[in-house]
Amino acid sequence: MTRTEPRTGRGADTRVAIMTAAERLYAEHGLSSVSNRQIGEAAGQGNTTAVSYHFGSKATLVRAIMTRHSEHVDVIRTRYVEAAGDSTDLRDWVRCLLRPVTEHNAALGVPSWYARFAVQVMTDPLLRTLVADESLTRDSLRRTLQGLGRCLHDTVPPEIRPARAEMARHLITHTCAERERALAEATAEPGTSWERTADALEDALVGLLAAPTTRR
Amino acid sequence: MTRTEPRTGRGADTRVAIMTAAERLYAEHGLSSVSNRQIGEAAGQGNTTAVSYHFGSKATLVRAIMTRHSEHVDVIRTRYVEAAGDSTDLRDWVRCLLRPVTEHNAALGVPSWYARFAVQVMTDPLLRTLVADESLTRDSLRRTLQGLGRCLHDTVPPEIRPARAEMARHLITHTCAERERALAEATAEPGTSWERTADALEDALVGLLAAPTTRR
Repeated sequence: MTRTEPRTGRGADTRVAIMTAAERLYAEHGLSSVSNRQIGEAAGQGNTTAVSYHFGSKATLVRAIMTRHSEHVDVIRTRYVEAAGDSTDLRDWVRCLLRPVTEHNAALGVPSWYARFAVQVMTDPLLRTLVADESLTRDSLRRTLQGLGRCLHDTVPPEIRPARAEMARHLITHTCAERERALAEATAEPGTSWERTADALEDALVGLLAAPTTRR
Repeated sequence: MTRTEPRTGRGADTRVAIMTAAERLYAEHGLSSVSNRQIGEAAGQGNTTAVSYHFGSKATLVRAIMTRHSEHVDVIRTRYVEAAGDSTDLRDWVRCLLRPVTEHNAALGVPSWYARFAVQVMTDPLLRTLVADESLTRDSLRRTLQGLGRCLHDTVPPEIRPARAEMARHLITHTCAERERALAEATAEPGTSWERTADALEDALVGLLAAPTTRR
């Protein structure tokens, strides 16, 4: 479906330029409002077919952008997972889930667009599946979810756990996007940082995931 | 900015038709990708300026759609707030926050678009402020937030409470939008209902809001 993917040289530079432009445009305007032509122009490509030449479909482009970030997230998460070992403390596994995301966002500097781009992808009915599939191939995420599952095993009924995991995902994704937007638009409260956002999210996620269930 | 707003007769019918079409189109395609012309066409208006004639700006149209829903949410919430009285049980106030939203969504039937429309509005940098201002004029919401504040007063530090409230809002908004989408696309798990979604959210929100804070 796509051309061969050069890892170095001018082709690689063009791919990166297109991904960078697409991420920003998708984050600001939504996946459906941005054309390949606009992305090509923003990436400084004179050829109006540059995007389809290098990526084929929008799905391939979106996936390539997500993969570029998730590789970095995975490196950080692997470190957290190794530190967590066989911990049975829920907080350790919440850190494995959360901190790689906030640390990656922090590393992108200000302004960044990844967190808002991720919201667009997560709320797209088709693309979200594709991305969810990709991230589950990551050993570090699989081990994190297993760790969380073990900690909740005795307290949260099995039929409730997937809904809790989904809510945790919403909370991380949307809180990060808000933070990124506030930082980019310089509307963030003084003292706002990814570190403090992560601290607040960590406490809230522990509370959310471990909340007693009231059966009705 | 807008014309006089007829409450009855053909003008009122046209306004409702436009609001209904706009809500669906905005929910499915995002606020920025939908033109007034598309809304007019979907609402069966031959005159291409019908939307601007009846609503003036996009902000006015969006606000009118939100108000139509929030009036119903407010009626339900007022009932919950009166039942809560001067309760000091956090769960009672979480119910006041949550249940009017899920009950209103349930009352809309399947398919509905309001929950996904609300996500678009909440993630729009400009329109979100306008809507937040409007909902805070509702006495029922003000009393709910006060009730929540009283319950968290001794356990959650004051500088943490606004972030927790924001996270609660994210969780309700996005979980409802997901549920609505799954119901509309018939991809929901068997047995999915707004009632069960509300039960799961209620437990999670209590856990999130009351989570112990670890100071660093």
